Amino acid sequence: MNKAAEVWVREVGMRDGLQGLDAFMPTAEKIAWCVAEAAAGVREIEVCSFAPPKLIAQFADAAEVAAAARAIPSLTVSALVPNAKGAERALEAGVDQITYVVSASESHNRANVRRSRQASIDEFAPIAALVKGREATRRPLLSVGVATAFGCAIEGRVAEAEVCALAAHFAAAGAHQIALADTVGYADPAAVRRLFKAVAGQVGAERLSAHFHDTRGLGLANVLAALDVGVRRFDGSLGGLGGCPFAPGATGNIVTEDLVFMLESMGLATGVDLPALVAVRAILARSLPGVALHGAVAKAGIPKGMERWRG
Amino acid sequence: MNKAAEVWVREVGMRDGLQGLDAFMPTAEKIAWCVAEAAAGVREIEVCSFAPPKLIAQFADAAEVAAAARAIPSLTVSALVPNAKGAERALEAGVDQITYVVSASESHNRANVRRSRQASIDEFAPIAALVKGREATRRPLLSVGVATAFGCAIEGRVAEAEVCALAAHFAAAGAHQIALADTVGYADPAAVRRLFKAVAGQVGAERLSAHFHDTRGLGLANVLAALDVGVRRFDGSLGGLGGCPFAPGATGNIVTEDLVFMLESMGLATGVDLPALVAVRAILARSLPGVALHGAVAKAGIPKGMERWRG
Repeated sequence: MNKAAEVWVREVGMRDGLQGLDAFMPTAEKIAWCVAEAAAGVREIEVCSFAPPKLIAQFADAAEVAAAARAIPSLTVSALVPNAKGAERALEAGVDQITYVVSASESHNRANVRRSRQASIDEFAPIAALVKGREATRRPLLSVGVATAFGCAIEGRVAEAEVCALAAHFAAAGAHQIALADTVGYADPAAVRRLFKAVAGQVGAERLSAHFHDTRGLGLANVLAALDVGVRRFDGSLGGLGGCPFAPGATGNIVTEDLVFMLESMGLATGVDLPALVAVRAILARSLPGVALHGAVAKAGIPKGMERWRG
Repeated sequence: MNKAAEVWVREVGMRDGLQGLDAFMPTAEKIAWCVAEAAAGVREIEVCSFAPPKLIAQFADAAEVAAAARAIPSLTVSALVPNAKGAERALEAGVDQITYVVSASESHNRANVRRSRQASIDEFAPIAALVKGREATRRPLLSVGVATAFGCAIEGRVAEAEVCALAAHFAAAGAHQIALADTVGYADPAAVRRLFKAVAGQVGAERLSAHFHDTRGLGLANVLAALDVGVRRFDGSLGGLGGCPFAPGATGNIVTEDLVFMLESMGLATGVDLPALVAVRAILARSLPGVALHGAVAKAGIPKGMERWRG
């Protein structure tokens, strides 16, 4: 499919999905996943985190995976960086997009990256400087993800004004994109509309993306709410890979296949071939035995009437 | 909780959930379910179908269950009737609401009730006459459910004009309420907004209710879409009980607990005590061993910050 995507779907399963697993996914399988999902039409994949390998062994092969991903034509290769050192590695690897994360909740930030929220905010300046120092033709997009933007399992509700202030700060400090992340499944459609509207007022809707989890079943309803206020960039995880360490059996990120199904059903083009995307699950099933794969469309099949997808 | 419900949640698991199961749920357990869910604040429960016991053994105890439900103060007791004979039995049982179902799709109607759609439409007249013949103080509400309103696993897409015409016909012929049912999980939020708006134009939004399945994961997004166009009555099934015979492992009706969670998170009052509702799942778990219970909130727990629900 060559039509322009009306909604931009980013796969984050290779990073957000894998980082919590004990099992190491073989490098060749990571690359196979990336190649197959790009071939299915997904335009952007967060392929790894440049976290210290000593901390997260899953990403010891980050540079190798990123190099393989860069060889895929027309794929936007994205990577998470936890600090300036990680950003240096990401720049060396030549990725197209770098994501840096700060939690709106002080407690979550400390639990997640073992430093204060202010220390995380301060760490952004050298990252932005590194990116800005790159010659323009090789400069990656820089995104800041505001984690726990809708609430925190430790602190509960998070003030919308805090999230707005953070977003405005990072936009002014060099972030090209701002992602609002419902890290622990606290968002509801009313909150999504309020917060995205408020933040769009600060930084512009075109810079925003939404990173929803389906922990409490509201993931796709939250996508709909965000669409309603102009958001056109969404993260998903193939098979809902990831789960949540605080909720056994609960899903993590919204399921990429179900996200694509909803968007395409509504007449919003994603550029993704849904049956081809669903088929990529087989790579996860064979290389991550015992890991639960979520997703309704994969179980129920493509509806009659979506003829272009029924072969 | 005594506040007026802003959104009316109807439990249909005792009918839609149970009718597809091989296992007979003991009558005492059905009654325990009904009592517990009413005590949790659910205002209306479809407690049975008055289908011929020879066809659906699960409902051989329909009159007994309905009688027990009627004894619960302030509960609206609802029952499905497949024909005029069933309506007679429902009237004898003294239920508060009667639901009759016709499929928008000819093929689905034949597969579901073994007669033509026109024959099903014609059967409504004697049912409406029976209800109208009842003295006003003991007259139940009469609802028509338009099944496969958003598409059909046999025929695919269903024309919106057909659904509008059916709704207008039944409203004129004595139906107090019209339910649009996404029987096989074909609805998407855009279609939901279009169709509910169109049908509301024919019969008024206040008569409408939505019966969504979560077969392809869009159930709650579809609820949000319906809310946006003024619908305030929704069906759900505790634990998503029901499944779909055409999609092993897929869920059936939307999960009542998750529906209540979404509505209350958005600030829409349902009158339901969520932890008490989640606790009712234990009755299903003990009396229907081996039957899968779905639901995200039951797995992930109530979020911090919804303090009234955290004891």
